[in-house]
Amino acid sequence: MNEKTTADLEKLRGLIDGVDQQLLHLLRKRLDLVAQVGAVKHGAGVPIYAPQREAAMLAKRREEAANMDISPQLIEDILRRLMRESYLNEKDVGFKQVKTDLGHIVVVGGQGQLGQLFTQMLTLSGYQVKTLDKDDWQRAPELFDGAGMVLVTVPIKVTCDVIRNQLGQLPETCILADLTSIKDEPLNAMLDAHKGPVVGLHPMFGPDVGSLAKQVVVVCHGRNADAYEWLMEQIQIWGARLVVADAKEHDNAMQLVQAMRHFSSFVYGLNLCREQADIDKLLQFSSPIYRLELAMVGRLFAQDPELYADIIFAQQGSLTAIGDYLENYQSALELLKSGNRQAFVEQFKQVSQWFGDFAPQFQNESRAMLQSVNDMKAG
Amino acid sequence: MNEKTTADLEKLRGLIDGVDQQLLHLLRKRLDLVAQVGAVKHGAGVPIYAPQREAAMLAKRREEAANMDISPQLIEDILRRLMRESYLNEKDVGFKQVKTDLGHIVVVGGQGQLGQLFTQMLTLSGYQVKTLDKDDWQRAPELFDGAGMVLVTVPIKVTCDVIRNQLGQLPETCILADLTSIKDEPLNAMLDAHKGPVVGLHPMFGPDVGSLAKQVVVVCHGRNADAYEWLMEQIQIWGARLVVADAKEHDNAMQLVQAMRHFSSFVYGLNLCREQADIDKLLQFSSPIYRLELAMVGRLFAQDPELYADIIFAQQGSLTAIGDYLENYQSALELLKSGNRQAFVEQFKQVSQWFGDFAPQFQNESRAMLQSVNDMKAG
Repeated sequence: MNEKTTADLEKLRGLIDGVDQQLLHLLRKRLDLVAQVGAVKHGAGVPIYAPQREAAMLAKRREEAANMDISPQLIEDILRRLMRESYLNEKDVGFKQVKTDLGHIVVVGGQGQLGQLFTQMLTLSGYQVKTLDKDDWQRAPELFDGAGMVLVTVPIKVTCDVIRNQLGQLPETCILADLTSIKDEPLNAMLDAHKGPVVGLHPMFGPDVGSLAKQVVVVCHGRNADAYEWLMEQIQIWGARLVVADAKEHDNAMQLVQAMRHFSSFVYGLNLCREQADIDKLLQFSSPIYRLELAMVGRLFAQDPELYADIIFAQQGSLTAIGDYLENYQSALELLKSGNRQAFVEQFKQVSQWFGDFAPQFQNESRAMLQSVNDMKAG
Repeated sequence: MNEKTTADLEKLRGLIDGVDQQLLHLLRKRLDLVAQVGAVKHGAGVPIYAPQREAAMLAKRREEAANMDISPQLIEDILRRLMRESYLNEKDVGFKQVKTDLGHIVVVGGQGQLGQLFTQMLTLSGYQVKTLDKDDWQRAPELFDGAGMVLVTVPIKVTCDVIRNQLGQLPETCILADLTSIKDEPLNAMLDAHKGPVVGLHPMFGPDVGSLAKQVVVVCHGRNADAYEWLMEQIQIWGARLVVADAKEHDNAMQLVQAMRHFSSFVYGLNLCREQADIDKLLQFSSPIYRLELAMVGRLFAQDPELYADIIFAQQGSLTAIGDYLENYQSALELLKSGNRQAFVEQFKQVSQWFGDFAPQFQNESRAMLQSVNDMKAG
């Protein structure tokens, strides 16, 4: 580079620095304004996540951007990122308490990560929360006395036993709820153990989400839905979306997506380990798509093996799903070995047809994801 | 909501709208300034992607943000998104031509998507590009006459045949290069067919990337590297990063990540299809992580079955990798069936140890990805 080029670049970079200063001030201003919106909503008990308002606002900004020859997707992506930040900050304000005369809540398994998250959210909403852990059972009668809700979030392998053996003596008006990732058995166990209101919940997110905004909570109704209507409203105030489902239907879907995919990711990791793959080298070669896939496999092995074994071993149905996958894998491999390229192409087309409009939709979605993975790359 | 709440919210939203107007103007200004930087770099032939400058700039902004009580990650994410936009716009300016006395370039297979992308990039850099497609072979002698480079990007199943049968009569100083996703066989075929400079390239990205900034191109040197040094520089000016690799090593790594993962995603789709899964319902239940995984599977089936079969059938080594995976799957399933939870946990721990520091690193990376997947959710 000659001196003139260097000087030109320096000058432009100085101007960009100035723009970025203004940008930071604007971000600060916007975060403060949205925090004020949060405070007003908090006072009025309005949910923090308002999908329609959000969609209308984004549509307007996209239009304005287009008029200024700015890509509408750019302003949408930036505003979505900003909204995430604002949702995170909502926690500092706290949330409206929907049910003020509930009595206290007992979180059974309150030392687990999910238990801690719900304890935090309930506390931020003004509820009195007591936790009961595995060494606290001698205190149980005292803790359950006067409880308005008992929320079960213990390891999946002991959930049904805990419900059956320990939760048969709750106050009759007390709500019994659980957060287990399978729903049919725990729900039946709760209905058997307790005569009062019962509801099964499955939060479809990890305990490390910063905010519940836009996250999904599956609800399987048990008994006396009127009595826990406030809880549904409370969860929505936290920003989550409720999806009501039949417990069996939920479990079947989970076997297909969760148990099966968990297991095949586990095997993928095992496979890399046995082949003594060089991860550093794989990453060097990796395109965004493979980097993403490696990350999805690797993240599994940062988790607690016990917890993970619990999920895999919890459901008899998973075994069937996992076995079916093996059969399909074997038959596809046979095709490959026989060199029957045409049959392979035919099968591919069948699956494509079955995916229908979802295939291109997924392609678009994943393109956006991959672009943001690429954005994250450092030198 | 009462009237006061509604009025308060309206007022705040009006103020937010005002901030967003200023934000759009600032974005416009920043894009224009970066475009000027691009023009200066273009004139001087400096690569558009400058990792060190980028890292230094982000570090500075993060510090400034922290001083204003703004999350450093927020400003970094927004600036990275803005940089992507600027890279996209670079194309409008064109790129410096490193080699001005090359003669013309022939892209063999120029109607394919990757061929079109490279034709576009080369043309934007001032080179004269002629394309040769499968019906054009009678024009080959005329097209090759005086060519400075021939770039092969034909379907993988015919690559080596095309090289062996059609490219034996190139001018001796002509560079012969290919873009095939396997490297060993095509590189050897090129070295056999042509006595002049030879280089194998594997662009590690799909033809739908908007910009080559930060993307990886694998380089397998063949012969007379001096003669194609300009090409290496040219690709870097487009913003890509070069990774030099041994062809066999590259192919082995690709079998592990690419062929194997492609195949297991294919089986996953086949499995969903055979189980007649209800995609709508699966999506409703899906947490960000499963939505991402479904999208990665589904995107496969939006692609061309023939192209896909080519990739799977191209390498004998893939078959071994795919078979090894099957064996590991079977033995893990046996463990599951026998109910040997402890052995399963042990195996899990072994793999975790093998992943070492990569496991938590992948967990952090994927957390960021999953957050941006969640940001994209509409109501």
